[in-house]
Amino acid sequence: MTSEFELIRRFFSRPSAKAVLGVGHDCALLQPPAGMQYAISTDMLVAGRHFVADSDPEKLGCKSLAVNLSDLAAAGADPAYALLAIALPAVDETWLEGFSRGFFSMAERFGVDLVGGDTTRGPLTISVTVIGHVPAGLALRRDGAQPGNDVWLSGQTGEAALALAHRAGRAQLPPEHLALCQARLDTPEPRVQLGRRLRGLASSAIDVSDGLAADLGHIAEASTLSLHIDVGALPRSAAVLACTDEGLALECLAAGGDDYELAFTAPAQRRRDIEALSRELGLALTRIGSAAAGPGEVILRDARGAPVVLPRAGFDHFA
Amino acid sequence: MTSEFELIRRFFSRPSAKAVLGVGHDCALLQPPAGMQYAISTDMLVAGRHFVADSDPEKLGCKSLAVNLSDLAAAGADPAYALLAIALPAVDETWLEGFSRGFFSMAERFGVDLVGGDTTRGPLTISVTVIGHVPAGLALRRDGAQPGNDVWLSGQTGEAALALAHRAGRAQLPPEHLALCQARLDTPEPRVQLGRRLRGLASSAIDVSDGLAADLGHIAEASTLSLHIDVGALPRSAAVLACTDEGLALECLAAGGDDYELAFTAPAQRRRDIEALSRELGLALTRIGSAAAGPGEVILRDARGAPVVLPRAGFDHFA
Repeated sequence: MTSEFELIRRFFSRPSAKAVLGVGHDCALLQPPAGMQYAISTDMLVAGRHFVADSDPEKLGCKSLAVNLSDLAAAGADPAYALLAIALPAVDETWLEGFSRGFFSMAERFGVDLVGGDTTRGPLTISVTVIGHVPAGLALRRDGAQPGNDVWLSGQTGEAALALAHRAGRAQLPPEHLALCQARLDTPEPRVQLGRRLRGLASSAIDVSDGLAADLGHIAEASTLSLHIDVGALPRSAAVLACTDEGLALECLAAGGDDYELAFTAPAQRRRDIEALSRELGLALTRIGSAAAGPGEVILRDARGAPVVLPRAGFDHFA
Repeated sequence: MTSEFELIRRFFSRPSAKAVLGVGHDCALLQPPAGMQYAISTDMLVAGRHFVADSDPEKLGCKSLAVNLSDLAAAGADPAYALLAIALPAVDETWLEGFSRGFFSMAERFGVDLVGGDTTRGPLTISVTVIGHVPAGLALRRDGAQPGNDVWLSGQTGEAALALAHRAGRAQLPPEHLALCQARLDTPEPRVQLGRRLRGLASSAIDVSDGLAADLGHIAEASTLSLHIDVGALPRSAAVLACTDEGLALECLAAGGDDYELAFTAPAQRRRDIEALSRELGLALTRIGSAAAGPGEVILRDARGAPVVLPRAGFDHFA
């Protein structure tokens, strides 16, 4: 019988170039670079809740790190380390081989060393903690938005939610759109490069994981102002454009989860810098609204200025 | 319906005195003190595996942090921060209130700030990441034991395993022993003070969570030497002394899990320092064997020098 320690050794032990002491000890030891702060975040993915139990393990390995890297991106941090705690119903070497391949492919792309973890038997659950470096005082936060700032969004929202709507029978996507939407759901791309380049440029930032309106709500609340969003300005992918149910399209755009784009605010005089950054990164950055004095709320308006009410505000695991 | 964000706010948001930015953001921001390294570790507890689903939530809150603090103790680190990811089958405010009370009571005792986390719906699973400070180069490790070193053990092992044996019908404990053993299982005491005082004194250390022999095996392997353990020298609590099944007593002492004592090695010339430390901390520190050149193994011998073979080597979640 394969033991826990053999599992760790076989699938999850790779030497760390950066850590003083890496995986396979009681603790990893990290030496912070001079002038840097650590940004740290944790996310838990549960089978049947965040993914279907028979998900492709390699894609799941990618995604379980990607959703955490998205939090580092939102802080403008450079990814450095990860810890992985995983509960598995049984030892399944094929699954573990695929999962670790996906996890490490994402780790290598973003310079992340796996420095610790835990494996146990239990309902399939994946808990990842990530640590990044950010120059002291330069981290992006939720509480820095100012009245008059523009509100920006990277990429496009809604495709992951559209894939879920298709699965639930609420939408009928043609195969080419379904493939794109499913890929957005299964293999999200954390906006790490964008996040680090927004240091000193954005006044606040957040990653869009629970739905655009809900996540912007955290900025509005933390910064104590109102964010006015022009729903007509929200960028639409081909799949969302082809959606004939406008209510569903709006729900996916503004309240669908699992997008892992960055929403951020910036002074209006930085528009050219942000447009230049968009070209340099080859990543759409779209101005979708503006911040104004207000009580900490998000106000969505259509092209005629009429308020838009969403059927649901955003993803909440207990709602 | 209580939302995820309200849950976090109500039960898990306390201001952090140490962190630049604490709970309730994409990332926490930590400013490392000068000259310090970070020790970091993660542990996952699963209902039905590490605890029974109807465990007292306050004790479970204590234990879920304590088992992680034990890893910091083994590294000689000063606890500083924790992140908590938790999956719950449903919102249960009474349970959450109790759990958070237990978690924070342990956090306050050991100076730990909760700086991040995640809550989601799912089979009851608790994943904690802890971070501590340790002066650069002084962390306790597994790979520093030297031939000729003494092997030491704090406190006593076996009581938690004896409580489990009682529950499984393998032992019949009188009520007063059962209460003590159950308390050791439910509310372990991480040896944080001992760990930090062993910096510069112990040559290697590990926390005894998977069973003494198995955990000493990690030191033997990492240090590439043999550890000779005198089974007769293992300290026995009243409950273990009263156990009439000597095979079971030995199994609990040397292979039972969930002890959270520290096992460590130190040069023989430091015996007086360690004995003085024991008196100062009011914590038994017992010399249980010695290290010698060898292939990386643990050899248990009884009082007559005969090899002792354990029925099982230690706790392994997949064995």
